[in-house]
Amino acid sequence: MKPQTLKGFRDFLPEDATKRQYIRDKVVGVFTRFGFDPIETPTLEYADVILGKYGDEADKLVYSFKDRGDRGIALRYDQTIPTARLLAQYSQSLPKYFRRYQIQNVFRAEKPQKGRFREFTQCDFDVFGSTSPIADAEILACSYFTFEAIGYPDIRIRVNDRAILFDVLEKFASEKTPVLSIIQTIDKLDKIAEEGVVEELIKKGFKRNQAEDALTQTQKSKPTTSLESILSHTQSLGVPEEVLQFDPTLARGLDYYTGMIFEISVGDGDLGSLGGGGRYDNLIGQLGGLDIPAVGVGLGFDRMVEVADQLNLLPSSTTNAQVLVTVFDETSTAGAATIASTLRNAGVQAELYPAVDKLDKQLKYADRKGIPYAVIQGPDEKKDAVVQLKDLHKKKQESLSLDDVIQTLTNDQ
Amino acid sequence: MKPQTLKGFRDFLPEDATKRQYIRDKVVGVFTRFGFDPIETPTLEYADVILGKYGDEADKLVYSFKDRGDRGIALRYDQTIPTARLLAQYSQSLPKYFRRYQIQNVFRAEKPQKGRFREFTQCDFDVFGSTSPIADAEILACSYFTFEAIGYPDIRIRVNDRAILFDVLEKFASEKTPVLSIIQTIDKLDKIAEEGVVEELIKKGFKRNQAEDALTQTQKSKPTTSLESILSHTQSLGVPEEVLQFDPTLARGLDYYTGMIFEISVGDGDLGSLGGGGRYDNLIGQLGGLDIPAVGVGLGFDRMVEVADQLNLLPSSTTNAQVLVTVFDETSTAGAATIASTLRNAGVQAELYPAVDKLDKQLKYADRKGIPYAVIQGPDEKKDAVVQLKDLHKKKQESLSLDDVIQTLTNDQ
Repeated sequence: MKPQTLKGFRDFLPEDATKRQYIRDKVVGVFTRFGFDPIETPTLEYADVILGKYGDEADKLVYSFKDRGDRGIALRYDQTIPTARLLAQYSQSLPKYFRRYQIQNVFRAEKPQKGRFREFTQCDFDVFGSTSPIADAEILACSYFTFEAIGYPDIRIRVNDRAILFDVLEKFASEKTPVLSIIQTIDKLDKIAEEGVVEELIKKGFKRNQAEDALTQTQKSKPTTSLESILSHTQSLGVPEEVLQFDPTLARGLDYYTGMIFEISVGDGDLGSLGGGGRYDNLIGQLGGLDIPAVGVGLGFDRMVEVADQLNLLPSSTTNAQVLVTVFDETSTAGAATIASTLRNAGVQAELYPAVDKLDKQLKYADRKGIPYAVIQGPDEKKDAVVQLKDLHKKKQESLSLDDVIQTLTNDQ
Repeated sequence: MKPQTLKGFRDFLPEDATKRQYIRDKVVGVFTRFGFDPIETPTLEYADVILGKYGDEADKLVYSFKDRGDRGIALRYDQTIPTARLLAQYSQSLPKYFRRYQIQNVFRAEKPQKGRFREFTQCDFDVFGSTSPIADAEILACSYFTFEAIGYPDIRIRVNDRAILFDVLEKFASEKTPVLSIIQTIDKLDKIAEEGVVEELIKKGFKRNQAEDALTQTQKSKPTTSLESILSHTQSLGVPEEVLQFDPTLARGLDYYTGMIFEISVGDGDLGSLGGGGRYDNLIGQLGGLDIPAVGVGLGFDRMVEVADQLNLLPSSTTNAQVLVTVFDETSTAGAATIASTLRNAGVQAELYPAVDKLDKQLKYADRKGIPYAVIQGPDEKKDAVVQLKDLHKKKQESLSLDDVIQTLTNDQ
């Protein structure tokens, strides 16, 4: 059988896995600074926990099966459902305001296509238990500083309040076209433009002037008092004013939002949304049985890595080793091991060549693997207590003490 | 339905998830220093990739099912099989010597019992492609420094060479009791003592004097030249001599080892093995079709966290926040947000209380959650451009500038 992964599933070889690790460390650093705590939930849950929560269409995408004990089992589909289960299960021991982040893989049996995978990483953080605008502002600020820490240019957070959409659109709604259906159409404004929205509303039973009215009135709306308070707190938390853009047509498709909603994008605008979220005060009760207000965000981890890569925000190395310690000949293996050990103790990331081979072959190995430097110690260097440090990019080498090598390589980190 | 996890599966609430994160960071730090590169493989594979590799007993423990496309699917059972698949799949692009680490969860439908779970974390690193003792030494040294970085006391690595066992025991073997069967019995020496081993060999068809002979001759064996070379290189790599203990009766149950084998333990000896590994030059060929020599180790991640916790090697905090920024009253929310932002910019892990509440209630919240400090700024403090820093353990508070608060809290990290 040809060695292969399942369609829609990916291996991450060192170059990509290192990039993912880098972004993971950055986001965890900011979440930690904001006092969000990690949790982990199992990959497998009782199927009853997961199925029937987001409707039939979502259920079709859940990986579920019977285990040997004939229990219905399902794979993690998102991180909100397991968290709702966890909030109910440990309600006695969790703090009143629960700020958690969670970075785990989820599984969806979607049709694989470019940029869409059946196993992918979700990165969520939320404040549970608070209805205060301070909580909304914390979510917006932590989102901003996460993106800032990675170095994305032109971070923009489009913000709206679901209350605005409900207020404006209620009078246009009918049994046939309820408010949420109108919202779902307006949500497409970016993709299908004004005329597209109007056309779709007409298809949904609107007269043209009604459809145009609904859109125009939405576009002209002003922020609610609640949203103004959230935005002002977000600025107090250090987010520059120009990052926050009120957009009354921002709708976000998901039914469950009840208040502030937002979407984050970076760069010149063609890169799409890298994350979004909002307030969802009823969902946890619906999912887990315990009535808890919530506000949070889901970041598209895989997409964040892709975009950061595209914008050259990631370390360019293809391997962790900064230097290959070569093995000159049979008699110098112990000496090479000692050099590797000394470098590592000083914090240099060093690989020891695991064979006795022609020097030429060793240098070619380092170069191919993307290791930037090589250290060589033959009998002459040994006698003089120095090594040759070869820069494999510049194809230059110089004779240095090991201390000087350490200095060169730690400055290079 | 009562909210619950499946038997044998675990949630990690913040306190435990933080401990896991801490150990993860430590081990990744050392692996990186040794020039090991991360890889990730999918949680799901074609069932054919995983089944039939380690025998019928193992196959029974694999979680497998048919997906909606009627494909046979299996959950990750270990990290060696997917790596063998990956080595074959990307053989053209991988370096000749491939040093990878992998920290992912695996799934085994074992009978749940104390300390044994159906989803747990494996932490492996290996050198593929080299038969040199240098590679074996790198594995031993990286194992040692990983444990050293976490701070475990009395790290001991028991080492043996499968060749010794084969040499000594071949003459005792028969069709009925092949060498591997004798090795499996000797492997139990720690648990069932000498008399137990002799009894078990007698049950397997040995005469008493034969059984005693087999054990005594094994115990008296000397290291092979190959093992001596590995141990000497390991010392050159900085591992103290007393850490490495030659033990000719160390057998390790798994059939696939072909050379050096080892086990790591720490502390006073009752804590069991925290990891082990060795050379397995034929397994990758058997699993993935590509003949590649290999040497590596599997660390028991979950057990490492448990033991580190037991030995008080882990940060004692139950939450990431070092300080709760309280909200004095309705009019001071913006000021509190600014304080939180200033602290975070200086690297302090700060939580902003997400409500306007009685101060007393806010302090109780911080205390219960395990946040060590609280910052308070009422109108008087605001006027004087200071804050009250309250130490919730010592129940003391002092009036400080925000700069002094930052200094106190960053020294406390």
